[in-house]
Amino acid sequence: MRVGIADTTFARVDMGTIAMEELKRNASVRIERCTVPGIKDLPVAAKKLIEERNCDIVMALGMIGATPIDKTCAHEASLGLIQAQLMTNAHIIEVFVHEDEVENDKMLAELAVRRTREHALNVIKLLLKPKLLVKRAGMGEREGGVDVGPLRS
Amino acid sequence: MRVGIADTTFARVDMGTIAMEELKRNASVRIERCTVPGIKDLPVAAKKLIEERNCDIVMALGMIGATPIDKTCAHEASLGLIQAQLMTNAHIIEVFVHEDEVENDKMLAELAVRRTREHALNVIKLLLKPKLLVKRAGMGEREGGVDVGPLRS
Amino acid sequence: MRVGIADTTFARVDMGTIAMEELKRNASVRIERCTVPGIKDLPVAAKKLIEERNCDIVMALGMIGATPIDKTCAHEASLGLIQAQLMTNAHIIEVFVHEDEVENDKMLAELAVRRTREHALNVIKLLLKPKLLVKRAGMGEREGGVDVGPLRS
Amino acid sequence: MRVGIADTTFARVDMGTIAMEELKRNASVRIERCTVPGIKDLPVAAKKLIEERNCDIVMALGMIGATPIDKTCAHEASLGLIQAQLMTNAHIIEVFVHEDEVENDKMLAELAVRRTREHALNVIKLLLKPKLLVKRAGMGEREGGVDVGPLRS
Amino acid sequence: MRVGIADTTFARVDMGTIAMEELKRNASVRIERCTVPGIKDLPVAAKKLIEERNCDIVMALGMIGATPIDKTCAHEASLGLIQAQLMTNAHIIEVFVHEDEVENDKMLAELAVRRTREHALNVIKLLLKPKLLVKRAGMGEREGGVDVGPLRS
Repeated sequence: MRVGIADTTFARVDMGTIAMEELKRNASVRIERCTVPGIKDLPVAAKKLIEERNCDIVMALGMIGATPIDKTCAHEASLGLIQAQLMTNAHIIEVFVHEDEVENDKMLAELAVRRTREHALNVIKLLLKPKLLVKRAGMGEREGGVDVGPLRS
Repeated sequence: MRVGIADTTFARVDMGTIAMEELKRNASVRIERCTVPGIKDLPVAAKKLIEERNCDIVMALGMIGATPIDKTCAHEASLGLIQAQLMTNAHIIEVFVHEDEVENDKMLAELAVRRTREHALNVIKLLLKPKLLVKRAGMGEREGGVDVGPLRS
Repeated sequence: MRVGIADTTFARVDMGTIAMEELKRNASVRIERCTVPGIKDLPVAAKKLIEERNCDIVMALGMIGATPIDKTCAHEASLGLIQAQLMTNAHIIEVFVHEDEVENDKMLAELAVRRTREHALNVIKLLLKPKLLVKRAGMGEREGGVDVGPLRS
Repeated sequence: MRVGIADTTFARVDMGTIAMEELKRNASVRIERCTVPGIKDLPVAAKKLIEERNCDIVMALGMIGATPIDKTCAHEASLGLIQAQLMTNAHIIEVFVHEDEVENDKMLAELAVRRTREHALNVIKLLLKPKLLVKRAGMGEREGGVDVGPLRS
Repeated sequence: MRVGIADTTFARVDMGTIAMEELKRNASVRIERCTVPGIKDLPVAAKKLIEERNCDIVMALGMIGATPIDKTCAHEASLGLIQAQLMTNAHIIEVFVHEDEVENDKMLAELAVRRTREHALNVIKLLLKPKLLVKRAGMGEREGGVDVGPLRS
């Protein structure tokens, strides 16, 4: 199995390296990495990892600023990542961290690390153990934060 | 006939299981299920259910938070689901429940159950009894809520 | 010539039947109809009418609520309808009626009827008499309402 | 060389005829014209002009109202026009005039005429004299209005 | 290696020439240039540079005004550029400068120059030295401005 890592020089945390460490710690997978300037460069980077470097799945890692332009960029990148998936029939797990999700730089760095790690585990499940995801359906999981859990009925 | 179920670990209700129960209770269909982390992973999951696991139709089940980022994610997922349908010529029935549609957790859980069940019936009609839908054209149906009915003219 | 009619059970007026009546009253065309739950199901329904049921053109009929979620749904459906047209090289005439265009239910029903009828005539012109549309270029036509006419220069 | 003209009956100025006059006055080109009801019908009309009527380039002419729904329609049409270009590798020059760009009807009519004419000249340059556009790169041109010119550095 | 330059007559700085100078100063590449009227013409221009003029990568250079319509145009252009990349499996580096990023014309001109130059270097890295980008992953680079650097952890 081969996992692609697409990340950016714009981000303020080396999410790509964190993802690679977490993937290797938990599964025996080959990794291909591509670093691009910004999140809008991620869709084609991810598609090339799938089509030209034979990745079965890709993690697309990015950090989003707090201005309206940043939010628009993130929206555009997300649409491109979905389109890339539909063109390749491969999952691309988007791991985006927004600066305004937390209050300070320290929390932002921690959030980036946690979300990247938890999505690396999602990638392994999608590739190798999809039934583990079915077991967690509707469980209110929140990558990078505290899971909110299922609603009481 | 084969129905695909794509749902998420993000949701706080196991909508996939509810959909499967309702489908089986009302028709003789085979079911393929895929659970992914979040709603933005649903478009390719649905497309793979159609193209790789031979589903004739898919239910895409998800729960949406109340923040602007959540709303943007839902918009992106919806666009991807429409695109996936256009690429496959198969219906993918989107069953999204927004946290801010109702006032509390209990009502949210109930809404998720009702909307999932009613859309499961729509799926059966689309697949097996399309003329039943024609009969209900313009009738103001509201899945999960009280039908508003046709306008008086 | 074959015209497809795609409409919804969500709408509160049976726009599909109105469209069929108006088409038959004004031209000799065959009609194929497909009713789906909501407007987001219209793009693939229209594409299937064109590709699987050999329609030359389609009317996509829907009614839009007044909430922000409704407006987002309409936007997504419209984008899908444009994409379906580009994939098929066939016109799909969108006939959407927004609840907040008028003041009460009676006016809404009347608007839905008028807009559907006037777009049915557009469909006939596009199919059979495209030069009639060229003659009306720049004339400020408003389907369902009073034409505003050309600007005085 | 063949230029396509796609315009609407919704517009309040016969932009198609103005475009044709300006094109013929300045170059020896064949013209194919298609008039559709509204701007959302322009993308497929333009694509059909390119693929079915052999146009090398298309002008897509439309007028946009001042309400939020009008703005959304324009956005959808613009996205479709870009997509149509990417599917055909042909330029489609969008000539949209917004009612709220100017203060009154007279100015709106004048703006529509000027913008249409100036974009007709752009079309000729793109087709026949692309180096003239390179010479004007970064010159702050504004079709329909006064060119703002390059920044002083 | 061949680099495409797509720029506009709308911009108020000749970003295309600046990009060409910076590329030639730093690498031995062939350059193909196409100038179009506005940023919404860039996606197909970039795709044609890749497919018809054999470019390996493209820089799409544009300047964005401060009004809501300008912002919508930029959003549409960006989506088209991402789509063009997905259709060609080639990077198109978007270099957009927004008038409201800075306070006056002088700063705007300087920003346009710096951002164009820094992205020209990104293009060279993507083409010829992709490992240099991996080394800068997560370093908080900001093309045209002061790099914000990585978060302290």
